Amino acid sequence: MLCALNLAEKGRGWTSPNPMVGAVLVNKGEIVGEAYHRCVGKNHAERAAIKKAGPKAKGATLFVNLEPCCHIGRTGPCTEAIIKAGIGKVVFSVRDPDPRVNGKGARILKKAGVTVESGLLKKQALQLNESYFSYHKNKRPFVILKMAQTLDGRIATVTGDSKWISGPQSRKLAHRLRAEVDAVVVGMGTVRKDNPALTVRLVKGNNPYRIVLSQSLNFPRRCRLLDSNSDYKTIIATNGAAIERFSRTKRGRHSLIYWSLRTDSDGRLDLHDFITKAGEFGFHSLLVEGGSTTATSFLKAGLVDKYIIIMAPLVLGSGISAVGDIRARKLADAVSFDRYFFQASGTDNVFVGYPKRTE
Amino acid sequence: MLCALNLAEKGRGWTSPNPMVGAVLVNKGEIVGEAYHRCVGKNHAERAAIKKAGPKAKGATLFVNLEPCCHIGRTGPCTEAIIKAGIGKVVFSVRDPDPRVNGKGARILKKAGVTVESGLLKKQALQLNESYFSYHKNKRPFVILKMAQTLDGRIATVTGDSKWISGPQSRKLAHRLRAEVDAVVVGMGTVRKDNPALTVRLVKGNNPYRIVLSQSLNFPRRCRLLDSNSDYKTIIATNGAAIERFSRTKRGRHSLIYWSLRTDSDGRLDLHDFITKAGEFGFHSLLVEGGSTTATSFLKAGLVDKYIIIMAPLVLGSGISAVGDIRARKLADAVSFDRYFFQASGTDNVFVGYPKRTE
Repeated sequence: MLCALNLAEKGRGWTSPNPMVGAVLVNKGEIVGEAYHRCVGKNHAERAAIKKAGPKAKGATLFVNLEPCCHIGRTGPCTEAIIKAGIGKVVFSVRDPDPRVNGKGARILKKAGVTVESGLLKKQALQLNESYFSYHKNKRPFVILKMAQTLDGRIATVTGDSKWISGPQSRKLAHRLRAEVDAVVVGMGTVRKDNPALTVRLVKGNNPYRIVLSQSLNFPRRCRLLDSNSDYKTIIATNGAAIERFSRTKRGRHSLIYWSLRTDSDGRLDLHDFITKAGEFGFHSLLVEGGSTTATSFLKAGLVDKYIIIMAPLVLGSGISAVGDIRARKLADAVSFDRYFFQASGTDNVFVGYPKRTE
Repeated sequence: MLCALNLAEKGRGWTSPNPMVGAVLVNKGEIVGEAYHRCVGKNHAERAAIKKAGPKAKGATLFVNLEPCCHIGRTGPCTEAIIKAGIGKVVFSVRDPDPRVNGKGARILKKAGVTVESGLLKKQALQLNESYFSYHKNKRPFVILKMAQTLDGRIATVTGDSKWISGPQSRKLAHRLRAEVDAVVVGMGTVRKDNPALTVRLVKGNNPYRIVLSQSLNFPRRCRLLDSNSDYKTIIATNGAAIERFSRTKRGRHSLIYWSLRTDSDGRLDLHDFITKAGEFGFHSLLVEGGSTTATSFLKAGLVDKYIIIMAPLVLGSGISAVGDIRARKLADAVSFDRYFFQASGTDNVFVGYPKRTE
């Protein structure tokens, strides 16, 4: 099963909206076929492994990190292929939460006389596809908030200097994160200050969609997100009036995707409406890259599923805070974490935490 | 030598102003005597080890983490004892920077026909007595700044709630730090808000001196530092006029130690004057426990030798910042570190760094 998980991992960044899946076929103590889901539209891992095994699949045991599917998607159901190949036993780690599967895959296999076991390396399998499981559990995209800051929680100096707080290794990590999500989210402050491309450059990987959350749509004169949009992946999430106005301008007229969001009682863009729209658009995972205002509003809305803080070994004193007012009056109001860990990243240290649910 | 270092470590918190020293006597491959400097006034490690070895010291090799002393202090010179015992060889890690020794110990031994080697486990030996070496190098006390903060650099909420940001393990660490230094330093903000005792309670150890840095001397009505001063270890570091005024009040009249400090061009207490006074008073190491104002002024003055940040897995957003304005306008102005590491402390993570010199 560890083999299956490691194989699955190879698909990272390419399988969305599908999960990463690895499959290993064992016959009489020998691996007769192994494969992983390479990218969306390609064969599922189970099918590919069976194909590799050929006649040796007969009577074999299939190890796979997710319950085999039983519905026709871009490819035929895996259960069918498993039964047809005469596989004797299927061991999977976790039930597939997709409502089209969700236990039905296992039932179909059992009914056809296949021995089915589940739960092996469950924890690791859940971790591997955390965004996929979170998406199906919460019925909305998995939100990762990533910030690079100093030890004292500053993301820039008082004069706005922020290049580069984090080291080269951490900037690679940031690009790897981009390659693993469906879309990256920034506010107008970041667009104006950094003019980011939000593409994947320091590692190999898919460019995600780019979402600007803003009501002002006060883009800088030169703006990569508008000017370099040949892949049509820039999304403007704003209010209806702003769309009305901006979509008539020269720069707003073509190739942009507009999302019209409700505003909340404070007149701000409603992030719950935003996350619903993102889910409807087909996104399973989002990476919020800041700045401070955007980060703060996601934290305040209780919409952060995973918080990644890259801490550089610097102390700035005054400067721009990573997080603004989230209405924590007492220590008990602070964002705390169900699980978390710290790890080194080049010269930096990275905190990774899963905030306790407060929604 | 590793044995000697481990033995030396046992004296931690008890030897100041002396360094921690461990000594191991080896004769024909057998340890014939080992000892450490238990506390100031007691036998030096070398002498104690020789005493334990008895006649077996003759012709033995002495491993010791610091160059043996050659001056008469509270005890006689170790060189004398070594020569008298007929020890054949002395291996020490580092030269003693005390101007009364500083190579002279080794010279006396060599002159008497003792073989002398040095440099073994030098790095570890320097680390063990870092405050001792720093004191002699910089001719002023070694300053440790310790703060407990959230991931986003807050030491309290906007309402002042700060109990407890750090976990029980880290609070023990804080008490251990107190036990290892000569004095603890706080500002009036901390005195008013926390009314701390600044004693060592969660671990075994000596209570350090307690220094309040303040010009207002606006002590709260109930104040542990004033009311529980039966050991006469509370020091008030302030300006001359404040001493004049406060020492005439009922609470200021007895049992307190006053230091009169110059003020700088901004009218603030001059920390360079403070550190000089602390050195003259005989302190080799100080622990600055905050709050924010005090921490900021030590950082701004470039007087922090070791910065320890206890990071609790919490995010507060707005709140009281750990560090205020240290005049960093560009990232290049930030406090950076020569050496640093992160380590776990119960539920918290601890950063330990040695700021680059900017004085």
